[in-house]
Parts: sequence; C-alpha cells; structure tokens
Amino acid sequence: MSSKILIVGAGAIGGFYGALLARSGAEVSVVCRSDYDYVRRHGFEIDSHTLGRWRFRPAQVLRQAGDYRDCADYLILCSKVVADIDRVGLIREGLAGKTAIAFIQNGVDIEAELLSAFPDRVLISGLAYICCNRVAPGRIKHLAYGKLTFGALTPDAAGLGQRLGDLFAAGGADCEISRDIVASRWQKCVWNAPFNPLSVLSGGLATQAILQSQEDFVRDIMQEVCRIASASGHPLPGDTVDLNIERTRHMPPYKTSMLLDFEHGRPMETEAILGNAVRAAQRLNVETPRLQALYALMRLRELQIRENRAPQ
Amino acid sequence: MSSKILIVGAGAIGGFYGALLARSGAEVSVVCRSDYDYVRRHGFEIDSHTLGRWRFRPAQVLRQAGDYRDCADYLILCSKVVADIDRVGLIREGLAGKTAIAFIQNGVDIEAELLSAFPDRVLISGLAYICCNRVAPGRIKHLAYGKLTFGALTPDAAGLGQRLGDLFAAGGADCEISRDIVASRWQKCVWNAPFNPLSVLSGGLATQAILQSQEDFVRDIMQEVCRIASASGHPLPGDTVDLNIERTRHMPPYKTSMLLDFEHGRPMETEAILGNAVRAAQRLNVETPRLQALYALMRLRELQIRENRAPQ
Repeated sequence: MSSKILIVGAGAIGGFYGALLARSGAEVSVVCRSDYDYVRRHGFEIDSHTLGRWRFRPAQVLRQAGDYRDCADYLILCSKVVADIDRVGLIREGLAGKTAIAFIQNGVDIEAELLSAFPDRVLISGLAYICCNRVAPGRIKHLAYGKLTFGALTPDAAGLGQRLGDLFAAGGADCEISRDIVASRWQKCVWNAPFNPLSVLSGGLATQAILQSQEDFVRDIMQEVCRIASASGHPLPGDTVDLNIERTRHMPPYKTSMLLDFEHGRPMETEAILGNAVRAAQRLNVETPRLQALYALMRLRELQIRENRAPQ
Repeated sequence: MSSKILIVGAGAIGGFYGALLARSGAEVSVVCRSDYDYVRRHGFEIDSHTLGRWRFRPAQVLRQAGDYRDCADYLILCSKVVADIDRVGLIREGLAGKTAIAFIQNGVDIEAELLSAFPDRVLISGLAYICCNRVAPGRIKHLAYGKLTFGALTPDAAGLGQRLGDLFAAGGADCEISRDIVASRWQKCVWNAPFNPLSVLSGGLATQAILQSQEDFVRDIMQEVCRIASASGHPLPGDTVDLNIERTRHMPPYKTSMLLDFEHGRPMETEAILGNAVRAAQRLNVETPRLQALYALMRLRELQIRENRAPQ
C-alpha cells in the first residue's frame, strides 16, 4: 500500500518536494492557500533543471489541514517560520492515528514549539538545500541544488525518518539522514546568518558581490554561529567556515530567500534565523556582537517596512 | 578693517554660517559650484527659525577658490568629507599671505590631510551642531540647533580661533572654543556613528524610532566610540552615552545627514564617520565589532548603489 502524505504549506518548497514524493508512488495531498483555486483545477507544473518538466496532480487539494479526510502516514510542514504563521495551528487538524510529523523549514531552535505541542507524535526535522521559486500560481521552477537532510527528533523517529528519506530518494531527491540534525541546522545557519540579512540590508546585493566586498565580515559572522553551535553541544567541523566560503565562491550569483521575500513584500525569517541564534547565544553566554548587530538592523528594517505600510 | 573670509563649499552649512559672518560685518565671499548662477544673481535667502529671514549677498561669488582675487584672513572649508571631494585641491588656490584655514566638517581623523598639505598655515578645526537644509538653489532653511565648536590644531591657532569665534558670536551663532577639539570630534561621533548608518540601513527610520526600538544596540555602538576616544588619549566624560541617549529622546524625530544624502543620491560620509573610526580602533587595538559591522554594511549599501547606477 502506498504511503499517504499530507503536505502543509505547498509553496515552492512544499510543491516541489510533494511532486517528488508523488513520483515515488506515494499518495500526496496538499494544503495550499494562496494558489488553491489554480492547483485544484490544474495541479502543479514543475520545471526542474535536473528532472525535467512534469505535472503533479495531488490526491487532494485542501484549503486547510482539517479538511483532510484520511489518515496520513506523514504530515510534512513546509511553511515559512515567521511570526504570523501559527505552525502548530496549521497542522493540528491534519493529524490522525499514527501520523508522523516532518518539517522542512529554515532556522535554528524551531523544534521546541512542535515537540511540546505534540509530545506523543514521531517528529522528523528536515532541511532543504535548494533554489526553487514559485514563478506563477501552481508553477514551480527548480533552479539549482535540491538536497534534503532529515533527522529524528524523537527516539522512535529513526525508522520512519529513514523510510521517508527512501521515498524522497525514489522520487529523485538527493536525500541524506543526519545523525545530529540540530548540528545540521546550525551548519545551515552558518551560511544563512550572513548572506540572508546582508543581501537585504545592502539593498539587494547577490551573494557573490557580498563575498567579494566583505569576506572578512562574512567569516566573522560565520565564526560566531560556529561558537554558538559548539556551546550548545553540537560542534561543527573545524573547516566549516572555509568550506562555506569556498562553496559560495563557486555558486552562481544568487538571491537569498530573505532577499526574495523582501523584494516581494513577504515576511522574512529574521526570527528563525537570527533571533533564535542570538537568543541561544545569550542563554549560553556566547559573545555574538555581529549577529546582534544584524538582528537589530533587520528588526529596524522590518519596523521601517511596517511604518511605510501604515497609513500616514 | 573688516575681516575677509572665503567660504569654500557654500551649501547649506557654508551658506548659513557665511551669512552669520556677514551679519557680524565681515566681508564674506563664497565658492559655490552647484548654485553658482543663482547665488551670483540673487545671493542666498536664509530662513532661520531663531534669527528670521534675510538675504545674504556675498562680496564675491566664485566657481573655484583660485578665482578669489584678494587675501582672506580666513578660508573656511565647509564641503562634505567624501572620497570624490579633494579637500586640499579645493582650497589650495584660495590661500594667500597669512590666510588661516578653518574647516567646519564632520568626521574623525580628518585633520592629517590638511595638516600635512599646509604645514605652515594656522589650522582651526570646527564642528557644527545644526539642522539646516538647502531647500532650493540659494535657499537655506535653518530648522534646529546651530552651535559651533572650534579648536586650534596648530600651536599658533588659539588667538585666531578665538577671533573667528567672536565673529560668529557677533553674527548670532552660539559658538564655543574647545580645548580638545579632537575629543569634541569623537564626542560628535558618539552620536553620528549609530544614528547615521542605522537611519540609512533601516531604509529611512528617524532617530526616535531607532532609539525606541534598539536602544541597547545604539548604546553598545556609542560605547565602542568612547573606547576608541579613550585609547586615542581623548577620553570622553563617563556620562557621554547617557547624555546622548537623553538628548536624542527629546529631539524631534530627525532625519540624519547621511539619510538625507542617501535619499538625494549624494555621496555619504561613511569613511569620515565610520571608516576612520574603525581604522583608528584597529591602530589602537580596540575591539569594535559593531562599528565594523556598520562600516561593512555601509560599504555593501554603497556598492549596491553603484551597481544599480551602472548600465546593466
């Protein structure tokens, strides 16, 4: 019997990875709000630089998780992690029987909210290393990368995590199981913490230009993230900063997710990426003046956006 | 015999203070480039919230200092301190006989360039605490404050500095002689270093909003400036940060000079205010991670402006 999967938050990430799972033979349903009408009628059109073009027609297209009339093996949360999205509320009504919860989301220290809301569920934490954009309603363009990393958050999650990874691999994803998914989150934060805010605060520079102009500053920010990771008991390899710099040097000029959100007037993952890192540092007595500065500046930038939007 | 004064860089600051000197009876000429035609015909119209409205007709209106056919007692440089303005070149041809050089300019560590170019001249360093804008060609609106601080940079400058201060006072300026003008520059930098870049990097917030949202961050930046001042042998009073915060709290919401430059597409005094502070800190082995972050971010912001302007 094929696995039943409910994707909650089927934007670019959720739509793309849902489409991969469907290719593996799973029965994939989606909760998608903004493109509901279009996706219900036409499904998703996927255009991947590695896997080609195809149409993904979900088993059910829903406005909210509570409308799901089945019992999913996996509910996969793919929303952004921002203040005005209630992650627990989004998924609660979509859970039944032994549904395991997985999330493919950015940020550090984002597990506790779900662990405490659903103490009896299997929880799997996931990270996507991908560049894919929603270019029109229901149309997703996969531009680069695509690796997934999953890790068990609850003691009983390892087997289910492995099985989910196998499904993704069968659908064409490069999928890896991490034995320390919390370290993997810090590892991803090493890149996100400098490049996401710098791309916004610079007024829209691509990663290449940032690196060429301010490599020392980028390295210093990365080191601060490494120090928090170590203090939190999840030390990263000694060459982490060098590898991130080298990798970025050989990436094509790239607009970060935060910059894309900024340019489209969408909320940014400032708290998930920077706020949580700064709060962890404070809890652990790690000095992170540069991360604090970036966080304060992003807060000011967001305040200005709100002021600009409010009627004068 | 009335004093002869040549103002070089007669924008808002130069025009306003030149007008005050003319009120004191001095014979004031100006070098002004962008508004040359208008000012030559009509002079300046000054509209001051404390001193009223009047017209200031300079003795000579010149395109460049070399056109001055007299021997000034004082040449007062009022240009901005930015990379594409050659301060030495701007004034060299306007000097004759015993002309003393004064400058009313922002920034720290901006003295050396003039001291080494003109080793035999009397040099007076000045700071303006004023909010005044050029609202149209030759029209200057004085909105708030206005205090000047002068100090001698060369051993023989004290008497001439005092006399210049007296002239300004006679013209209606609140003018003070500083016994340590280098400390006064650091003192002003305590305010400029946070509020100027934060107003730009936030996308245009006024000082009030910055302070209300990120007071701790502002204080930390101010403390870094105080530490550089101390290390450079010009310690500031212990209550400097508190006083600056209190003063800002009671200011009307205020757009910084850097924000005004940014909004009008003019070069910003990033190097004079932040770059020089960071370089002084490095020379003196003072840790200033927040100033470094602001400097790096302003450099990125300026890079983005240049990229945006360049043909694609």
